[in-house]
Amino acid sequence: MNLSEIGGEDALIDRLKANLATDPDHVIKGIGDDCAVLKTGDPEIYGLLKTDCVVEGVHFAENTAPEAVGWKAMARVLSDLAAMGGAKPVAALVTVAVEKNRAVSEIEGWYTGFRKAADRYEFSIVGGETTSLPEGGPAMISISMTGEINRESCIFRSGAQIGDLIAVSGRLGDSFESGRHLQFEPRFDLARTAAGSATAMMDLSDGLAKDLPRLATASGVGFSIDFDKVPLNGECNLEAALTDGEDYELLATFPDSAPAGFTVIGKITETIETPLKGGWDHFS
Amino acid sequence: MNLSEIGGEDALIDRLKANLATDPDHVIKGIGDDCAVLKTGDPEIYGLLKTDCVVEGVHFAENTAPEAVGWKAMARVLSDLAAMGGAKPVAALVTVAVEKNRAVSEIEGWYTGFRKAADRYEFSIVGGETTSLPEGGPAMISISMTGEINRESCIFRSGAQIGDLIAVSGRLGDSFESGRHLQFEPRFDLARTAAGSATAMMDLSDGLAKDLPRLATASGVGFSIDFDKVPLNGECNLEAALTDGEDYELLATFPDSAPAGFTVIGKITETIETPLKGGWDHFS
Repeated sequence: MNLSEIGGEDALIDRLKANLATDPDHVIKGIGDDCAVLKTGDPEIYGLLKTDCVVEGVHFAENTAPEAVGWKAMARVLSDLAAMGGAKPVAALVTVAVEKNRAVSEIEGWYTGFRKAADRYEFSIVGGETTSLPEGGPAMISISMTGEINRESCIFRSGAQIGDLIAVSGRLGDSFESGRHLQFEPRFDLARTAAGSATAMMDLSDGLAKDLPRLATASGVGFSIDFDKVPLNGECNLEAALTDGEDYELLATFPDSAPAGFTVIGKITETIETPLKGGWDHFS
Repeated sequence: MNLSEIGGEDALIDRLKANLATDPDHVIKGIGDDCAVLKTGDPEIYGLLKTDCVVEGVHFAENTAPEAVGWKAMARVLSDLAAMGGAKPVAALVTVAVEKNRAVSEIEGWYTGFRKAADRYEFSIVGGETTSLPEGGPAMISISMTGEINRESCIFRSGAQIGDLIAVSGRLGDSFESGRHLQFEPRFDLARTAAGSATAMMDLSDGLAKDLPRLATASGVGFSIDFDKVPLNGECNLEAALTDGEDYELLATFPDSAPAGFTVIGKITETIETPLKGGWDHFS
């Protein structure tokens, strides 16, 4: 059986994470949320850890401005740190894998984008790895990042309760076509606001149709979406808003009302009342 | 100018790290040692952070047993944690980039290797990323790891003093040909012993000819090697021992004598008295 036959990325991850034990002395949450959550020396502070990568021809097109590629690579990881409740980013590692005939100026352009994100969001780039690829290998950038968050502000995917409102920040869809995926700002401010009352939160990277079921599964609940309420980006249609992916907005659940900047689109129910299909999947 | 014309990997890194500021409130050592070193909540404990990747066709051949590939990917990073003074590994993130037509059993074999390393060295695999590659893209595994070390046990590359002895653990050369690069054990025990008296330490991954000059540059010193003393692996010659790379042994400097398990091969001098050439370089 090859990867395209396994039933998608989540099925693959379920299979790979079987038999992986984590050490409860160090780990609060392993695989299965936007970031891994670790204990620190201070019981009031959680450490966060996240990795993500972008591949040429998959996450960015060949002719994309290098600075925008660098920004996107960092901002994707920052979006995951934000989605834990507006964590503080601390340190990043950068791995760049490229063919030897790549222009130095292009790699430097990626670094301009990395640095711009580091300056804006006040974290340090503390190391990384540069490796050559065999001829014809697509360029790849992998970022790992650490962060910190107060224990009480840390919001997991798994806390949604039946009756909670489901809400999203911003507008969904058309991110790739419109170029928004190269310029977005991670939603730190909105996430910090949400952390005061949200029961569950995650970022929308693979499309609401893929990500909401993940949140529901993690929480052991269902959902009911009012499709008329889904905020559409520009002139895109509902299908695009649900399945395009690359929104990098927040998806959160709230017991009573959603704070400013969020649109309520449905509620948490016992079972799934409005099944969703589609969304981005690497292996289906 | 492309990457093959820049003068090697170190020249590339020098160029990329220019203009990267690190935050002294969080970072003790950024780019330039085996691991980045971060402050933790406890002033007596340093946090370590490292990333490394292996690429099919560069770091492992196409037909390599998957479990051995997984072991190597983890052990390379562990070797860097060991080289800081025998740190405790804590948490790892795994990124796997593969074509969709890859066999699931092969990815599972890599994970068997990852898990074997996690069990042996008692750390947790807490997350990661799986991404598809465009057709023809070489498989790539990137590992990021955190660790912890007592402040006083943390040994940097930069502490070598004129007059110190230069020593290496184990035997050098022929690692790739002999298959040792797929099975090696990171030198945690020897590193912990060395940490009591070493002034500088690093792991040997690109060959002594490449790595000793890095240690000397970081320390602002030179070196004199007694080439007859270099411990050769099996029947390999001196050239192979100096330049093959993939040894994953320790290179350390000591004021008086080297502990058991180390072979003294020279001493730290003011200038470089025995210039070295060669060693593994991705971009030259």
